[in-house]
Amino acid sequence: MPAPKTTGDVPPLEWLFHPRSIAVVGVPSGDPRGGNFLRALRALGYDEEHALYPVNPKLTEVAGLPCYASLLDVPGPIDHVISQVPAAAVPGIVGHCIERGVRTLQLFTAGFSETGDPERAAIERDAVRRAVEANIRVIGPNCMGLYVPEERIAFTGNPPTESGSVFLLSQSGVNTADLIFRLGALGLRFSKAVSYGNGADLAAHDFLDYAATDPQTAVVGAYIEGVPDGPAFAAALRRCARTKPTVILKGGLSAAGARAVSSHTGSLAGSVEVFEALCRQSGALRVESMAELRDMLVALTSSTRQVHGHRVAMLSSGGGVGVLATDAFARVGLDVPELPEATREQLSEFIPIAGTSARNPIDAESFGGRGRGAGESERRRGILRAVAGSGVVDAIVVSPGIVQGAHGSRVPWHNDAPPARPPEEEREEALALASELAAAQGEAGLPLLYVERDRVWGDLGADLELARALYTGGIASYDSIERAAFVIERLLAWRARRKGLPQLF
Amino acid sequence: MPAPKTTGDVPPLEWLFHPRSIAVVGVPSGDPRGGNFLRALRALGYDEEHALYPVNPKLTEVAGLPCYASLLDVPGPIDHVISQVPAAAVPGIVGHCIERGVRTLQLFTAGFSETGDPERAAIERDAVRRAVEANIRVIGPNCMGLYVPEERIAFTGNPPTESGSVFLLSQSGVNTADLIFRLGALGLRFSKAVSYGNGADLAAHDFLDYAATDPQTAVVGAYIEGVPDGPAFAAALRRCARTKPTVILKGGLSAAGARAVSSHTGSLAGSVEVFEALCRQSGALRVESMAELRDMLVALTSSTRQVHGHRVAMLSSGGGVGVLATDAFARVGLDVPELPEATREQLSEFIPIAGTSARNPIDAESFGGRGRGAGESERRRGILRAVAGSGVVDAIVVSPGIVQGAHGSRVPWHNDAPPARPPEEEREEALALASELAAAQGEAGLPLLYVERDRVWGDLGADLELARALYTGGIASYDSIERAAFVIERLLAWRARRKGLPQLF
Repeated sequence: MPAPKTTGDVPPLEWLFHPRSIAVVGVPSGDPRGGNFLRALRALGYDEEHALYPVNPKLTEVAGLPCYASLLDVPGPIDHVISQVPAAAVPGIVGHCIERGVRTLQLFTAGFSETGDPERAAIERDAVRRAVEANIRVIGPNCMGLYVPEERIAFTGNPPTESGSVFLLSQSGVNTADLIFRLGALGLRFSKAVSYGNGADLAAHDFLDYAATDPQTAVVGAYIEGVPDGPAFAAALRRCARTKPTVILKGGLSAAGARAVSSHTGSLAGSVEVFEALCRQSGALRVESMAELRDMLVALTSSTRQVHGHRVAMLSSGGGVGVLATDAFARVGLDVPELPEATREQLSEFIPIAGTSARNPIDAESFGGRGRGAGESERRRGILRAVAGSGVVDAIVVSPGIVQGAHGSRVPWHNDAPPARPPEEEREEALALASELAAAQGEAGLPLLYVERDRVWGDLGADLELARALYTGGIASYDSIERAAFVIERLLAWRARRKGLPQLF
Repeated sequence: MPAPKTTGDVPPLEWLFHPRSIAVVGVPSGDPRGGNFLRALRALGYDEEHALYPVNPKLTEVAGLPCYASLLDVPGPIDHVISQVPAAAVPGIVGHCIERGVRTLQLFTAGFSETGDPERAAIERDAVRRAVEANIRVIGPNCMGLYVPEERIAFTGNPPTESGSVFLLSQSGVNTADLIFRLGALGLRFSKAVSYGNGADLAAHDFLDYAATDPQTAVVGAYIEGVPDGPAFAAALRRCARTKPTVILKGGLSAAGARAVSSHTGSLAGSVEVFEALCRQSGALRVESMAELRDMLVALTSSTRQVHGHRVAMLSSGGGVGVLATDAFARVGLDVPELPEATREQLSEFIPIAGTSARNPIDAESFGGRGRGAGESERRRGILRAVAGSGVVDAIVVSPGIVQGAHGSRVPWHNDAPPARPPEEEREEALALASELAAAQGEAGLPLLYVERDRVWGDLGADLELARALYTGGIASYDSIERAAFVIERLLAWRARRKGLPQLF
């Protein structure tokens, strides 16, 4: 999306996400690269396309850019200001922003209402009120601010440079970075992300409203601690969740957690019942941990979202793995149905003594390794085709059940460990398996889910390569059967609850 | 424990775990290393201390050892036989075992009752009956058999060579290997492990009875699919769980899972209610997944087992992390109590604006990195000392909340990732942090639990090194707050239920 060309009727959040100039006030003098924000913006090349102004009265130059004594000395117009100054200096900065006609202000500065100190809370309130009265919208205080890959804006080093379709809003900077980096590693990409801390001005409902109509955004993920304006939040959530899958993690739903919320972002947390009811009514999808939030965002941007029924085929190597997986699916109400005689006969071509180990769960040696030669690949393909053709399953879960270490991992898991296999070899195998499974999924016409069993002590490099290649091919991978089962169950329940709302997929 | 010297009154399981000679019947002729079992036994050096006899009529030598045409040709006495022959050849092998006065027989051979074929089930029954009538005890069929580090016995390559205190019994070979390798990677060590498959002769109650009195064994972990003799199992479980922490994972507790159990090991699974009641009455600890089983074994062999109350101090970096952790603890009934004013004042020395971020959860920058200089180490130490001295907590959970990738991980998490830091540097930091935390735990007199938040895409090498160093220092690490919370809650509930039974710690 191009930067807005006019000023009069442009909504403030368009300006927020598409500033044509940024001033960073209070760049630290001790860091030759100009501190976190300047470093991150330059690393993404914001200054190659737009104007970037470091501000610090003690410096005349920083990281090769001219540095200005104050906002008043900056030579061009300023759309967006990032404040790194101490809390006491913020009122003065707000005055300068008003004088310069700044449109949006991010207060990274902390030490306001979240401290519980009434004086500090009053300074926050006054500063934000003065800004808003002058038509300056504020994110924060106590926040990391923006990640907009399209505009080359970031708040920390080395996030993905490409844009995607997932919009993130989060009151926690660490949680925002967690999502960007962990999901980014998997190949997921973002339209925009905003860490908005205390939410003294712009808050969840503003960002949900923006995401609801942002053409770049297809899926929304949120980490919320407090809801200052309940009705506004409910209305915005309804509008957003109506047309875009909206996943919400709410912090502070326990009594002790609510106290922690007030210490973190000075917010007031509500009760779990009220929040759950709100999500149900609006068609949003509530989760309870960062892992669940990540898993749901992966599910909603992969073939997993196409799961439309409770019947799962489980393909693994190792009978015990299949038994425990079946129990795990059953615990959340999913079914691992017995395959019909005809399918089992087809499978007997690929699985020795197919009588029982092909009933489902399916114990197939072929799924114990990665791309071991053309024969294995053909077997895997044949097994997947037969299972998909059975007509009795809605999804296929593949879990290799590899025992790491036993197969020669790169991780020196104990001191007598044997020399590892070359990483390149493992990587090639991983990529081959991923493209094979993507092809099989296309052929099968059923969503495939991949589970690297409890990916804990294994060979992460190749695992990550495999997970990324799978994701690029439309296949989500999860860290355990339990998490795959959770995702399927939650998606089905969510879809069932959305009766009367538009069907999203 | 030395191998038994006499034959008359030695219990059969002493012979099973301490054979002075092993014959491997049916070593594959296609593998110059003699297949899985021969390779594993030689890798551990069984043949350097005991007699090892490969048997295959097509070979005269394999892997540098003389190979015999049949058991009848083996020159010395044979204590233990491992059968790798096809199912049809097993009755003949049993005859040879009887003729040779073999004491124990492991049938790796599969294709018996687990196929659901009545004829194959009859062959299993007859063969095992003949063996038992001749005083030969059988493990299997359809099993991987033994891992006894003290005797240099293993069924797969490169397990830990040192002995430890955890005894494993499992009907699944893959699950046995999973536990040995994943827990082994962490530094946990085993007294013995046995994978016993269909359990046609020796079954869970036999192994529980052995473990109960084995002086090498302090903690017992079990993966069980079927219980052929309910009263015998209940009695053995009671005896074992009375004096040794006994963790049980039961597969097939769902209807579909029970069907899978019958396909896997031909066992009959029971109902979840009956099994749960059995565990409650006997003082055993029931878990529902391999991850829970691993976590509990780690907890029971580390300082985590010393947690005696519900009050947790949560130390992390990042307010959102603390908020979500507090909610997660609350969900399982644990408390994150507010620290007293005096403690918060002590903490103000180490945490800027300590008013609220030191209330608990504690948001302390120091816990965001690893051993960054002496100053940080002093701060961490001071924070831990103050928290432990507060008198209001029973355990301290430390979670660094590192966002991997952002701090320069070795994993190439996306294509633009910056060059990684040298592994040696990260490793040194990890080791320094581990010894620092172990010292702090000693000083604090409270159990410390470490959580590497959702260790998924991170730098596994250093993570593993850190986790192992921590475990060696008595500190358990868990993969998520949820898993740490689960372990604490489950241990407390288990201890409360054991009233009337000996207190184990």
